[in-house]
Amino acid sequence: MRLLETINNPNDIKNIDPSQYHELAKEIREFLIKKVSATGGHLASNLGVVELTMALHLFLDMPKDKLVWDVGHQAYTHKLLTGRREEFDSLRQFEGLSGFPKISESPCDAFNTGHSSTSISVATGIAKARDLKGEKFKVVAVIGDGALSGGLAYEALNNAGNLKSNMIIVLNDNKMSISENVGAMAGYLGKLRTSSKYTGIKMKVEESLRKVPTVGPRIIKSLKTSKDSVKSLVIPGMFFENMGITYIGPIDGHNIGIIMNALNAAAQSNNPVLVHVITKKGKGYKPAEQDPSKFHAIGPFNKKTGEGIKGSEKFRTYTEVFSEKIVELARKDSRILGISAAMADGTGLTKFSKLFPDRFFDVGIAEEHAVTFAAGLASQGFHPYVAIYSTFLQRAYDQIVHDVALSGLPVTFCIDRAGIVGNDGETHQGIFDISYLSHVPGLVAMAPKNAHELEQMLEFANTLEQPSSIRYPRGKATEKLTEFDAPIEKGKAEIIVPSDEFIVFAVGRMVKVMYEISLKLASEGINLGVVNVRFISPMDTDMIDKAASTASCIFSCEENVNRGSYGEALGSYLMEHGYKGRFMNLALPDDYMVQGSPNDVRDSIGFDPDSLYNDIMEAVKTVFGKKS
Amino acid sequence: MRLLETINNPNDIKNIDPSQYHELAKEIREFLIKKVSATGGHLASNLGVVELTMALHLFLDMPKDKLVWDVGHQAYTHKLLTGRREEFDSLRQFEGLSGFPKISESPCDAFNTGHSSTSISVATGIAKARDLKGEKFKVVAVIGDGALSGGLAYEALNNAGNLKSNMIIVLNDNKMSISENVGAMAGYLGKLRTSSKYTGIKMKVEESLRKVPTVGPRIIKSLKTSKDSVKSLVIPGMFFENMGITYIGPIDGHNIGIIMNALNAAAQSNNPVLVHVITKKGKGYKPAEQDPSKFHAIGPFNKKTGEGIKGSEKFRTYTEVFSEKIVELARKDSRILGISAAMADGTGLTKFSKLFPDRFFDVGIAEEHAVTFAAGLASQGFHPYVAIYSTFLQRAYDQIVHDVALSGLPVTFCIDRAGIVGNDGETHQGIFDISYLSHVPGLVAMAPKNAHELEQMLEFANTLEQPSSIRYPRGKATEKLTEFDAPIEKGKAEIIVPSDEFIVFAVGRMVKVMYEISLKLASEGINLGVVNVRFISPMDTDMIDKAASTASCIFSCEENVNRGSYGEALGSYLMEHGYKGRFMNLALPDDYMVQGSPNDVRDSIGFDPDSLYNDIMEAVKTVFGKKS
Repeated sequence: MRLLETINNPNDIKNIDPSQYHELAKEIREFLIKKVSATGGHLASNLGVVELTMALHLFLDMPKDKLVWDVGHQAYTHKLLTGRREEFDSLRQFEGLSGFPKISESPCDAFNTGHSSTSISVATGIAKARDLKGEKFKVVAVIGDGALSGGLAYEALNNAGNLKSNMIIVLNDNKMSISENVGAMAGYLGKLRTSSKYTGIKMKVEESLRKVPTVGPRIIKSLKTSKDSVKSLVIPGMFFENMGITYIGPIDGHNIGIIMNALNAAAQSNNPVLVHVITKKGKGYKPAEQDPSKFHAIGPFNKKTGEGIKGSEKFRTYTEVFSEKIVELARKDSRILGISAAMADGTGLTKFSKLFPDRFFDVGIAEEHAVTFAAGLASQGFHPYVAIYSTFLQRAYDQIVHDVALSGLPVTFCIDRAGIVGNDGETHQGIFDISYLSHVPGLVAMAPKNAHELEQMLEFANTLEQPSSIRYPRGKATEKLTEFDAPIEKGKAEIIVPSDEFIVFAVGRMVKVMYEISLKLASEGINLGVVNVRFISPMDTDMIDKAASTASCIFSCEENVNRGSYGEALGSYLMEHGYKGRFMNLALPDDYMVQGSPNDVRDSIGFDPDSLYNDIMEAVKTVFGKKS
Repeated sequence: MRLLETINNPNDIKNIDPSQYHELAKEIREFLIKKVSATGGHLASNLGVVELTMALHLFLDMPKDKLVWDVGHQAYTHKLLTGRREEFDSLRQFEGLSGFPKISESPCDAFNTGHSSTSISVATGIAKARDLKGEKFKVVAVIGDGALSGGLAYEALNNAGNLKSNMIIVLNDNKMSISENVGAMAGYLGKLRTSSKYTGIKMKVEESLRKVPTVGPRIIKSLKTSKDSVKSLVIPGMFFENMGITYIGPIDGHNIGIIMNALNAAAQSNNPVLVHVITKKGKGYKPAEQDPSKFHAIGPFNKKTGEGIKGSEKFRTYTEVFSEKIVELARKDSRILGISAAMADGTGLTKFSKLFPDRFFDVGIAEEHAVTFAAGLASQGFHPYVAIYSTFLQRAYDQIVHDVALSGLPVTFCIDRAGIVGNDGETHQGIFDISYLSHVPGLVAMAPKNAHELEQMLEFANTLEQPSSIRYPRGKATEKLTEFDAPIEKGKAEIIVPSDEFIVFAVGRMVKVMYEISLKLASEGINLGVVNVRFISPMDTDMIDKAASTASCIFSCEENVNRGSYGEALGSYLMEHGYKGRFMNLALPDDYMVQGSPNDVRDSIGFDPDSLYNDIMEAVKTVFGKKS
């Protein structure tokens, strides 16, 4: 690690002799494989951009110049080259190095990212701000071909081509988003990749025409003079040229010299320039090259074999429960369709896609279209199940309100990674979906207490002639509480532990936590009733009225921010209906949640079982205190 | 009106002799001008698509075939041709004919629309559903060039080109969205419009090459064989061809025969086909041709002169107040920028754009990019004011959460048309923004009681080093209550009428309504205190605590749905803090709101001043009742 150890500050890479770039790239890859095999993280995409990142840091003056990484999970080499090598052992851990660019971590991180397709908009803003202030610095956005399927990226291209500001968009084309890339744009990029062939033909045409005495030069002239319309016809990358963006490429993304040349050429323009770079995801590490999807985001693994290091415990995740159940339902009902936004693996739709290829649609990273496309399908009698993580579904809020719910269409949103998600940090927590969904008119919003109830709800959703959503957390599915399996009835909660005195309304995974607290309290002679909310919306007001008629203290508990929570609606309802007991809403604080294991995050904000136990105990004591 | 009167049912147009199409188009235009001059409505866009709509109805079999109008304000002729002529006097009125397609109104309306850029997604869904069911019918989406700048449309194109289903996308290109169209795509369409010239050149090249003995045929052959890459180089519309969409056009959108030919050709394909149609906005009515922006959406007007019929009353709208104040602020502070998503006129940024052309950005119909672009600008020290209607800002929810608020960037969202908006109906009401914004961490969400307070808040927002939003309603600004003008202090509410007994927390325009109710109650000896909330988020808990310590009854009042409302947060807070009095949340029902004048809509749901007075009286009486 001799070379890498000489790079301790931004721009230090410029001291490396070009003859040693290859060796440095090798050292970086070894470093990344070693560190990520221990901590887990995004490996394949980072291995793919080692040379590209080196070239960018040779080209740019950090932190004066601004480099915006789209999504941002591919910025590990960038972090290595900007003085953060020593922190890699804490990658993605609580209070450790973020797996994404973070302004608070380094002035070389120009923007906080995590969601897809934002970089061109951000870079356009930065470039325009620079011009307005009359400053001089370079602005580069690095966007993957997958992220280019997001509508936001297109909106930004459409605008950037018009603004006449220099900026460089590096299109990092590895033919993948998280899984194999889809969509017409992917096909188009495929054409460009082989464009040397047709560029050659174009040259040959012109050369041949030159040799033709009378007609030839006239044709060439007419081609050249009417340049606005015709010139673009014979330039590769005309998709981008048509958007007002100069296109350079495609070039080899593992050749630093070639990348540098392209970047230097791009810097000369007064307009946005797109540099199309071909990289190989997982480059330099055989297991990742062979299965880049597996190594996209991976837990700790054996560096030699590439095998994941698993705990001895075997368990089902909610994703797996969903994966099996949706297939079972689809076998029985041909109206059921599966829709994914480039995350069939992550959301558990891969099996469905293999068994029902005609009824599965991966629309690419395009959550908005996923939802409105589902609305179109539902309007013709189908029942689409749209599986999108809580944090990414934020992008389709208007489509849910305007295209699905307004028309009351039977689309079911399967919201994985709801609640505290963990190591990806602030940008990936699923802590807002109750707030942004429970007010959508006509949407039936559910959360299951355990694996079995997720199955019940998936089945129940299919009986509804209206939109529905089911939120469930990342990781291990609760297999307990199976003795409670009342049939699902719309808008009806389920009593887990009956009580007249203290009652907690718990949402989703909090049911089990509250059940266990209830057992503990019972041993102390305190009878805490537990209600499994099941329906965040519509609320079970009968159950609430019943509880209010006897309980001296009502609690609510859910993994969502406080404002807009189920508990807030419950508290307000109780207030309006004259409840005179005590009420306590145990929700997350109204803030972004940091990275770390979900339990580390919960500990840090007092949302762990012990803290919740104490909160409840304190309230219970107050009530007892008043009585005595 | 002889011809038009023979069209009383879907497909009746097919009985018209082609020689009379011209006459029918004339009758339709006369009808539309007459009716819209009385009711108000979207005129210019409808006049532009008379022949296009006729051609579509000649081509399609209604309602078996599915026709999806993007946005939908241009569907008047479609309504005329599908049996709704008699209802035009009630256009956009309460319980009358909708100004947009509406499934509940006619089986010929394939989808409910209102927001931009949804049609291709919807049509793709419908077409795929048809194929899955093995049915045969045609699917057509009609999308304007303006709507094509929305990312959702691009996501859909990207997906449609891949799905291998026949559907026809009619690109209705009138070179306008609501105002002059912007962005690189607009420039590209401009090129296509003049493409007959370069198509000609292409033909000439091929013809010339043919005449060249040896080289010529060889070149042509090499051009033709390597078709995947090269063919697309010499086809106009290659932007779309690159997306896997066959392109036909551009064609004259006022020539029914030509449109029919193109549609029939398009129907033969197994893939999506885009038919590029050039129309003239306002066609056939001189005032609208000359000023299509004015006649985009217009109130009642004088048919002869085109002059609007205004009430004798002169008043300022909130939009005008915003328009003047933002200019004043920008004069003093060069950090202030103005951003619009194709609605500079509607949002009041036109004056700003003229005075500060370098500091104004119209990004086109692209709300997501507007927000993330603003984030980029703000990250460099600027303070962008992003002016977007409440209903359209829904589309940028994730960008607000993820790109602006997560980084705490000073972007101010100027949310016009908040609350009940009126005649555009369900798709345009601004009744969700409190629910989707108040939980966003770090966002300061405000609502002014009157014109002066909007000015204060705009000024105050500029002092914040964090994101903020200001919601204000459509129409006349409240000029009263100017005697209450305490300086704005972050998170602090303002007392309008003090009281210890009954207190209402009123948001925005409801402050005046509540003030007037308070006056009325005072004359009956009841002292209703009025608090101007000012800050929806963060809540003024000091003021709430103070009220709770004395009041026997607390009310909340706002024009937003109940779930996720300010009142809900207030009610829950009171409940958690042991308030023992009565609480009543006067918010809108959790439902979509129908069309009609805002006051008609309010009457219909019991949200008019009299109903609110009665609600409050009832609660007050209960409290008195308990006392006596």
